[in-house]
Amino acid sequence: MYNIALFGAGRIGQVHAVNIAEHKETSLYSVIDPYLDGANALAEKYGAKVQSTEEAIADPNVHGVLIASATDTHANLIELAAKAGKTIFCEKPVHLDIARVRDCLATVKANNVPLFVGFNRRYDPQFRKVREMLSAGSIGKAESLLITSRDPSPPPAEYVKVSGGMFRDMTIHDFDMARFIMGEDPVSIYAKGSNMVDPEIGKAGDIDTAFVVMKFPSGAMATISNSRRSGYGYDQRIELHGEKGLLTANNIKEDAVEQWGENGCVAAKPEHFFLQRYDAAYKAEWNHFVDVLAGRAKPECSGYDGEQALLLADSAIESLKSGLEVKL
Amino acid sequence: MYNIALFGAGRIGQVHAVNIAEHKETSLYSVIDPYLDGANALAEKYGAKVQSTEEAIADPNVHGVLIASATDTHANLIELAAKAGKTIFCEKPVHLDIARVRDCLATVKANNVPLFVGFNRRYDPQFRKVREMLSAGSIGKAESLLITSRDPSPPPAEYVKVSGGMFRDMTIHDFDMARFIMGEDPVSIYAKGSNMVDPEIGKAGDIDTAFVVMKFPSGAMATISNSRRSGYGYDQRIELHGEKGLLTANNIKEDAVEQWGENGCVAAKPEHFFLQRYDAAYKAEWNHFVDVLAGRAKPECSGYDGEQALLLADSAIESLKSGLEVKL
Amino acid sequence: MYNIALFGAGRIGQVHAVNIAEHKETSLYSVIDPYLDGANALAEKYGAKVQSTEEAIADPNVHGVLIASATDTHANLIELAAKAGKTIFCEKPVHLDIARVRDCLATVKANNVPLFVGFNRRYDPQFRKVREMLSAGSIGKAESLLITSRDPSPPPAEYVKVSGGMFRDMTIHDFDMARFIMGEDPVSIYAKGSNMVDPEIGKAGDIDTAFVVMKFPSGAMATISNSRRSGYGYDQRIELHGEKGLLTANNIKEDAVEQWGENGCVAAKPEHFFLQRYDAAYKAEWNHFVDVLAGRAKPECSGYDGEQALLLADSAIESLKSGLEVKL
Amino acid sequence: MYNIALFGAGRIGQVHAVNIAEHKETSLYSVIDPYLDGANALAEKYGAKVQSTEEAIADPNVHGVLIASATDTHANLIELAAKAGKTIFCEKPVHLDIARVRDCLATVKANNVPLFVGFNRRYDPQFRKVREMLSAGSIGKAESLLITSRDPSPPPAEYVKVSGGMFRDMTIHDFDMARFIMGEDPVSIYAKGSNMVDPEIGKAGDIDTAFVVMKFPSGAMATISNSRRSGYGYDQRIELHGEKGLLTANNIKEDAVEQWGENGCVAAKPEHFFLQRYDAAYKAEWNHFVDVLAGRAKPECSGYDGEQALLLADSAIESLKSGLEVKL
Repeated sequence: MYNIALFGAGRIGQVHAVNIAEHKETSLYSVIDPYLDGANALAEKYGAKVQSTEEAIADPNVHGVLIASATDTHANLIELAAKAGKTIFCEKPVHLDIARVRDCLATVKANNVPLFVGFNRRYDPQFRKVREMLSAGSIGKAESLLITSRDPSPPPAEYVKVSGGMFRDMTIHDFDMARFIMGEDPVSIYAKGSNMVDPEIGKAGDIDTAFVVMKFPSGAMATISNSRRSGYGYDQRIELHGEKGLLTANNIKEDAVEQWGENGCVAAKPEHFFLQRYDAAYKAEWNHFVDVLAGRAKPECSGYDGEQALLLADSAIESLKSGLEVKL
Repeated sequence: MYNIALFGAGRIGQVHAVNIAEHKETSLYSVIDPYLDGANALAEKYGAKVQSTEEAIADPNVHGVLIASATDTHANLIELAAKAGKTIFCEKPVHLDIARVRDCLATVKANNVPLFVGFNRRYDPQFRKVREMLSAGSIGKAESLLITSRDPSPPPAEYVKVSGGMFRDMTIHDFDMARFIMGEDPVSIYAKGSNMVDPEIGKAGDIDTAFVVMKFPSGAMATISNSRRSGYGYDQRIELHGEKGLLTANNIKEDAVEQWGENGCVAAKPEHFFLQRYDAAYKAEWNHFVDVLAGRAKPECSGYDGEQALLLADSAIESLKSGLEVKL
Repeated sequence: MYNIALFGAGRIGQVHAVNIAEHKETSLYSVIDPYLDGANALAEKYGAKVQSTEEAIADPNVHGVLIASATDTHANLIELAAKAGKTIFCEKPVHLDIARVRDCLATVKANNVPLFVGFNRRYDPQFRKVREMLSAGSIGKAESLLITSRDPSPPPAEYVKVSGGMFRDMTIHDFDMARFIMGEDPVSIYAKGSNMVDPEIGKAGDIDTAFVVMKFPSGAMATISNSRRSGYGYDQRIELHGEKGLLTANNIKEDAVEQWGENGCVAAKPEHFFLQRYDAAYKAEWNHFVDVLAGRAKPECSGYDGEQALLLADSAIESLKSGLEVKL
Repeated sequence: MYNIALFGAGRIGQVHAVNIAEHKETSLYSVIDPYLDGANALAEKYGAKVQSTEEAIADPNVHGVLIASATDTHANLIELAAKAGKTIFCEKPVHLDIARVRDCLATVKANNVPLFVGFNRRYDPQFRKVREMLSAGSIGKAESLLITSRDPSPPPAEYVKVSGGMFRDMTIHDFDMARFIMGEDPVSIYAKGSNMVDPEIGKAGDIDTAFVVMKFPSGAMATISNSRRSGYGYDQRIELHGEKGLLTANNIKEDAVEQWGENGCVAAKPEHFFLQRYDAAYKAEWNHFVDVLAGRAKPECSGYDGEQALLLADSAIESLKSGLEVKL
């Protein structure tokens, strides 16, 4: 049984807490959060202790850490955990500054500990099946990838001021998805954005609607379509065109009921947001991390993957500002 | 070029007039209808003459007749045309009285003329594909057939008083479809009905909602689900279950546009009624009849088929009254 | 925390064990099964004890019993538990003999204990939504109900010899579904069956393919379409036609990936069988039973419902044998 | 009755010939084609004459001309017809050289004759419905448009040498679609392409796979996804995201039959190519042109629209070569 110290008792920390507690090889050992009420509530629910960062890092009973705290604490916590020899699961991103990311990954490497970066969508059964079908040759060589990612409704403008902006907090998942599906790193990137959804987001210096185009060494290309607001739930789809046809991963709808009447045939909306849509993905991701903890697997999604996704986000911002395609 | 005399200038006559006029081997030679304004209008539109029944039957320039007049005139017109050696296309039914049907078919046989009975749905590309895929072995042996046929809205109660009732005017198409798909005649039939849609239909002695169950010599079974009113367009579907899987022929929707929003994902309704849904079927049916006219084919849908469908309708009425399964 | 004694450590017992263990108000207290290896394995997995029937019934720590043992033991266990004042969850059916069912229910009534009969499908989110939308008036008055229930592959012929046959072990769920959706008891029933899937089932005196037609006091009707083998997964659908339109509950597919190519557009099959399709239903059903245990609810699905479903199964068998519609 | 002179007896000329002949207000008066066998065959089929260009232009019985000849003849024929006062329908493009297009349009203007440029997709019922629903406010303000256009299989490399290349012969339809749906002209364009489908196309100096991103004055953006080969039929879709939700125009499939079996649920492919998919569009487009001929309407799709679409194609080529976003 592996004991896990969970940093961060917020929304995403709570998602992981369930999976840690339910997995037969892991237990939620401790919760660390500067907001003590949150830490206490979560710890109590799963019979865990509340620890300080220092206690958790120093505790020899802690086998693994799950870092789901504020973004700007990730790199420091990774380094502390790495030096203490813990196996590390860190929510994306490692850091918003790529130089800091590289330093941090060097520390991880020097301490030779496994680091898994939580790009949860790689574990969505739909997207994973697309990748597996591509690998199995079902559509021949990949040619064009279309990624659609639209949130149900925009975050507060306050959030985008600290998140690093849309490309770094939201599109970063799509950059990783493109790399995951295509199995190669892009050689060029172009990004175009607009502030259509909430003027406050524009005032905060960010966009809320975007298209990105990337080209890969093989000649294949990918586009990403993003919006901070769909109006109809969480829109998470991919289309992969290859030599012999198309693979699509469609949305999962809230239910399978339809009403047919005078005004047409009405089906349910896509599942509301990531907690619903990626429930299976969070569980599968944790299963993989347990394999890493147990030495049965290497992290499929590493610090390098986190770094590359951030690099693409940074390059997209550069392209957005310059109107130029950025070479990578 | 085959000259066609069209009996009946009403709604269904007009459907056929277009197809006769557009086919490169046929021309609309004359229109016969006791309602002369209708006959004149239709004739003028296609450069045809207006004739009386006697003139058309006696006219050696008439190669084929299309009988789309009132139901109670069909059998007489068939006999006149048969004696005059014309090739005959008759809308279903031959007659509402099965003894009269048999007499009429004997006359046709004695005169050795081809008679095609217009069960248009056999020429719907969806249903035909199901039958062809069954014949090609794609689902193995047929086991269960489900036929759904629901009109968009009920006819006036006046109509059901002269139509022979729902089983004889509406379900008769489904009886024929069951025979067409299964390729065998049922050995038993049970029918249950209800008056749910329009109380006036009930007062006229008829039902407007029904389920029918038939069993075939092979052991396969079929059910028919009918209503005089869907509320969402013309509902025309079949499901055929076999040893290795299922074939479904779904509705054709009015268009391929969807709107996704707060209240769900809205697609278009099924096409409104038979003029829309069976447009392709009427054309294909006429192509077949031209092959019959030209001696290139025997009628795929014969007087015998018309008789058998009526027999099933009569037996369904008997079952409805008695609460007993009727053996055939 | 309510302690639950689970009778039966087989497939369905294991499904319930997870839900009992995971629910925050219940714990799996003990497992009872004459096959001790099974009982031990299941008990060990959830930290429960193994008890004999007598021990469990006599144990004052047992608050509720879940009866998932062999069918012929249900009625006896219900009576023992009722006399001991336990709250009872019993998998359908109470018993295959309706007289025995009635005796048993009388005992339950005399002891004034809650009895919930586990018709799991009532808790499927799709079917429940259909019922709720009907109640909310979304399609007006119900007119026609079509229930499709087809298993992926047939059980061994040995099973049908002890199960009471298809109508009593499989269609019984559909009889209950018809009553659940329509909210009334049928006044007539007709059943037709065939042995198409496995000749051994025929030799065992049973059918494997069936259509059933029922009529309700309101004039509404329902049909059930059954097969012991679909060839494409577990086919569980309903269609409810009303005055203003149609509600459909469609199958849940294994995933949301499609492959488009030369041979068409290929989507996933329906989820394989009841363990997958009704996973959410089993959880929701257990939530309801916990409300019963806690006195917050009466059983929504009672001994009476179990009796009525069996009565319909018995009447269907009678109709199948006689070829007559059976009045209820 | 308006007499039409048809320039070009090839594939697209034949599509128009049917619609000219079937329309009750137009007749196919003459066919002009340097390949006389083709001209004769088409003329004979519809009872038209064969004329030379000079004869047709000089013939006072010719009311309208339909230019469906080789691309490099369009501008000259438009000018001749304009000077002769004919009403003009010209297949896209007016010319591949934008300066020549502008000269030609100046001649048209000077002669004050109506010129309709045949962007057939504007008349597809699906795309038109999207535009009408947008105008009706059903999704609020337009924000993101995604246009998918993929041919079933690539043209011969010979073709791309004379067609002006993919952006000018294929994407030009999508540029027009973007302008049609958004109702505004873009302010920037970026294009990225690849040679993935056929190396011969690459050797001929063209691409066969592309993504294009455009931004509009309102802040809205559009992307186009193209390929010369789908492997699964003609892929013609749009997605329009707005403030309140999404409108999609999906593909029309070859039929409505599905086969469900062990390997999944198989539906038909999209209709094969433009002759099938845009059959209704060609008819509707001709109806509009007849309104223009009769003075009941101005051309909805004018020389200016042709010029703008070509300008976008030229700018996309410039962007493709430079890797820069082009300002418009």
